Amino acid sequence: MSLPHPGPCEPIDVRPLGARLGDSSSTALFRTDDVEVMRLVLPRGKTVPEHHVEGEMTLQCLEGVVEVRTGDGTQQLQAGEMLYLYGRTPYSIAALDDASLLMTMLRKGENSKDDDD
Amino acid sequence: MSLPHPGPCEPIDVRPLGARLGDSSSTALFRTDDVEVMRLVLPRGKTVPEHHVEGEMTLQCLEGVVEVRTGDGTQQLQAGEMLYLYGRTPYSIAALDDASLLMTMLRKGENSKDDDD
Repeated sequence: MSLPHPGPCEPIDVRPLGARLGDSSSTALFRTDDVEVMRLVLPRGKTVPEHHVEGEMTLQCLEGVVEVRTGDGTQQLQAGEMLYLYGRTPYSIAALDDASLLMTMLRKGENSKDDDD
Repeated sequence: MSLPHPGPCEPIDVRPLGARLGDSSSTALFRTDDVEVMRLVLPRGKTVPEHHVEGEMTLQCLEGVVEVRTGDGTQQLQAGEMLYLYGRTPYSIAALDDASLLMTMLRKGENSKDDDD
């Protein structure tokens, strides 16, 4: 448990990183027994290879543009747009421009994902 | 079940409403068995009286400024900031300026909340 843990009701900054994006890396913002929230930082051209997580998740594009690919097709997500995925849906992400995403993952039963970085 | 239901992987607009805020009302963006996501629209001076929900929730300020009050104190939330609350935490919200919030609620076990509007 080496994650920073803001307490409940403490403001967490999810503003666009802008010029700082290139020097930033993906960060776990907080994690409880039920939910884990990360900021995913994807410089242009970077991809997240296909994988899945157990629980449902939402992906909100905070800046830039990404392409989200699932078995059902490919979807562009612009800054200010979000989508949700059911648990165990295989997906991949490709950054079409410098992008950061707010990722909210429901920790469905098993507390398994090892996404620390 | 009269809610609009975008499918998984369909982009949902969560950009600031800006000048349209005064003519907008709070909207359920989507709901699954596990999670419900709303945009809460609070014109300046509007309040959400103290209440609680069963599951954990996150509140993300999309525009404006609000004050979130819990038993532990009062916290201002500006555009681009979020916070989380554990389930069953009594809270109230007051809009210090025209504001809209993205509210993500975990539907903990009981599928009960009747927040339709």
